[in-house]
Amino acid sequence: MEEKNTTHILYGNIVYAVSPEKLVFSEGAYLVCENGKCRGVYDSREDALRTLSAQPEKVPVTDFGDRLIVPGLVDLHLHAPQYAYRGLGMDLELVEWLNTVTFPEEAKYGEITYAAQAYDDFVTDMKQTATTRMCVFGTVHPEATLLLARKLSEAGFGAYVGKVNMDRNAPDSLCEESATASFTATMDYLRKFAFLHSQGRISERVQPIITPRFIPSCTPELMEDLGELATQQNLKVQSHLSESKKEIEWVSELEPDAAFYGDCYAKAGMMGNPVTSVMAHCVWSSPEEIRMIKEGGVFVAHCPQSNTNLASGIAPIRCYLKEGLHLGLGTDIAGGFSRSIFRAMADAIQVSKLYYRLVDQDQKPLTLSEAFYMGTLGGGAFFGKVGTFLDGYDLDAVVLDDSGLDSVFDMDLAKRLERIVYMPESAALCAKYVQGERIL
Amino acid sequence: MEEKNTTHILYGNIVYAVSPEKLVFSEGAYLVCENGKCRGVYDSREDALRTLSAQPEKVPVTDFGDRLIVPGLVDLHLHAPQYAYRGLGMDLELVEWLNTVTFPEEAKYGEITYAAQAYDDFVTDMKQTATTRMCVFGTVHPEATLLLARKLSEAGFGAYVGKVNMDRNAPDSLCEESATASFTATMDYLRKFAFLHSQGRISERVQPIITPRFIPSCTPELMEDLGELATQQNLKVQSHLSESKKEIEWVSELEPDAAFYGDCYAKAGMMGNPVTSVMAHCVWSSPEEIRMIKEGGVFVAHCPQSNTNLASGIAPIRCYLKEGLHLGLGTDIAGGFSRSIFRAMADAIQVSKLYYRLVDQDQKPLTLSEAFYMGTLGGGAFFGKVGTFLDGYDLDAVVLDDSGLDSVFDMDLAKRLERIVYMPESAALCAKYVQGERIL
Repeated sequence: MEEKNTTHILYGNIVYAVSPEKLVFSEGAYLVCENGKCRGVYDSREDALRTLSAQPEKVPVTDFGDRLIVPGLVDLHLHAPQYAYRGLGMDLELVEWLNTVTFPEEAKYGEITYAAQAYDDFVTDMKQTATTRMCVFGTVHPEATLLLARKLSEAGFGAYVGKVNMDRNAPDSLCEESATASFTATMDYLRKFAFLHSQGRISERVQPIITPRFIPSCTPELMEDLGELATQQNLKVQSHLSESKKEIEWVSELEPDAAFYGDCYAKAGMMGNPVTSVMAHCVWSSPEEIRMIKEGGVFVAHCPQSNTNLASGIAPIRCYLKEGLHLGLGTDIAGGFSRSIFRAMADAIQVSKLYYRLVDQDQKPLTLSEAFYMGTLGGGAFFGKVGTFLDGYDLDAVVLDDSGLDSVFDMDLAKRLERIVYMPESAALCAKYVQGERIL
Repeated sequence: MEEKNTTHILYGNIVYAVSPEKLVFSEGAYLVCENGKCRGVYDSREDALRTLSAQPEKVPVTDFGDRLIVPGLVDLHLHAPQYAYRGLGMDLELVEWLNTVTFPEEAKYGEITYAAQAYDDFVTDMKQTATTRMCVFGTVHPEATLLLARKLSEAGFGAYVGKVNMDRNAPDSLCEESATASFTATMDYLRKFAFLHSQGRISERVQPIITPRFIPSCTPELMEDLGELATQQNLKVQSHLSESKKEIEWVSELEPDAAFYGDCYAKAGMMGNPVTSVMAHCVWSSPEEIRMIKEGGVFVAHCPQSNTNLASGIAPIRCYLKEGLHLGLGTDIAGGFSRSIFRAMADAIQVSKLYYRLVDQDQKPLTLSEAFYMGTLGGGAFFGKVGTFLDGYDLDAVVLDDSGLDSVFDMDLAKRLERIVYMPESAALCAKYVQGERIL
């Protein structure tokens, strides 16, 4: 990345979260980017220029007029090979859906031409969303998953991309032969990933991540090997945790010695300290599991739409916020059909209202601010200093034209943001930056 | 309407519901329209032409190729003056939201230039949806509501349009002075509506409807007068019923002699026999109320998104389906932010899954078929023979191009429909017919 691309100033209506409770709204302001990092938001052009070490006359200012500039959105959990059939089989529950729709389709990604076409579609469409960073599941196939990583890199995303591990309870067409075979395939994946990094064919913004599908798919031997690998090579981990009641029962049958579901990951060293991991769902986590998540600094990827579609339930996010857990949002394509993290924000608020009304009236619904936080800074923290416009953060930003949402109603910046969150399809994406680099 | 416009044949992939359980899928088929009425769906052009009394060579066939043709969608409940601020104030609950957002805004519709601009926006945008019929609330203002009716008529919609009645518990700027004043304003509205009908300035497809806002807004005197009027003039009625628990408590305080909320409408003769009415929500209807709804043939407008946004709860729709109630879907703009009845179908399925998981596991989630039925034939029945392509039904249809949803995944017509329901923003509306007349 050359400096000339990543030192510049963006002008527009700037909104970002600094905490779950606090959004900052700056109308007609200047967002300063130096070498891909935020250097603050200023009301005047002069103040903005003064912060830069570069000569002011050489610093381009891009004027986005009345548009909104918000941090790039972060999708903490999605499955790229499921994109092709999102919105299908929605009358099924998790385990049935995996067996009848998901597994047969994922098996096809052993064929590289099929994967190439499908991942092209996926990346092309994701470019048109406000998402800039994601944690992605591929399939068990190293080659196809490397191809996915390359395509995400070419499109400019920041991403963790995982070759999936599964050595039990999957159809023959998809199941890896043994724990050893699965582990070896992951080593192969990591080696080739490192080679592509060294060749500059995958950018440093795209990294591999250890990805055991979930406990029912992975033997303890495999889990142990993967946990050791993550620890030794300082790799992050992504997986699923306590998504549905049936799944939890299944895990307790498979692993009777584990105290609870999350304990299986803990035994493999994947629940934090030193490994950083992100667990999708946590809909039905027990108090012990929640304590473990908290103590391990584990990220929870809240996927409200998927949890609804698969009739899993509603994760107690108000409780997790009070506990101070690391929280982000995931589309969970294709448990979720939507690729939009704005939609995930709205979904998160909506299901929290139903949780409040139907389950526990002591758990107040999420606010817009909290949902926006989770979809930006909350999830962004998994990637480092990402997800806001405070000094020193990576400059990931999207520019949105909401003029299609104009109406006779008087609207300030807070109202405009609320309408974009609820009706993202009516706001046009005008530009997109990752680490200061314009990728759209 | 001239015959030349409304006798024709549409070719494409045709889908329609004939019951909650049964969708019909006809790939590459011919939908015959004679004088605005359906005359069946045929696999061959010859068979299609043979059903018409007109000379075959004069009957135009519109070829929509690989596109989908489905019945026009029916929105059984929405508020046109709330369209301008949909997606705002969503962190509030019903009564608070009415007082701080809705009522102050509705008061502005006393000014006809404001109403004209806002209703222009509303109708222009609704034209671009798959909705062909709707039951609409205006405001208390006769002139503005007549203007709304005219604009809906000009755009070709079928609609019931109601001047709202409210003579208590509203701010001075909106509250009508007395029961008499409110009733008189409604009489004025009906008279002017009839005049505009007679002049051909409002089509017969657009009709007035008696519209007491809800019991907290209407005194018993007003309700009695309106009920009598509906009976005498054979007018339909629309209102709200048992939306939230707080509202139900309020009604029981206001009307201590009523056995339950719906009883207030029954006393005014608005719960069926002979009056046909549609009640929005019915989230918390008691068994007695459900029995009354059933016996009166009252339509329930299920508004899942609104009930979620306002944290009202989830209506027990599986139970209502088993009871055989008349069921349709409503966007309830602006309790709901979305204007799409496809979205309402998806929302209905989604909340039914959460109801099943969190409230009552004996009440299975809705299926795609059931949701599609409600959004077409279920709600359509309020308008007469509307909402399907069976012989004798009004030919209301929308044509959808879902090529934006193509993927490597093999898809049949049922799968294509499912994806449109879940991702309507990705399917382009190509044409729209009401009673055989092309309106887009």
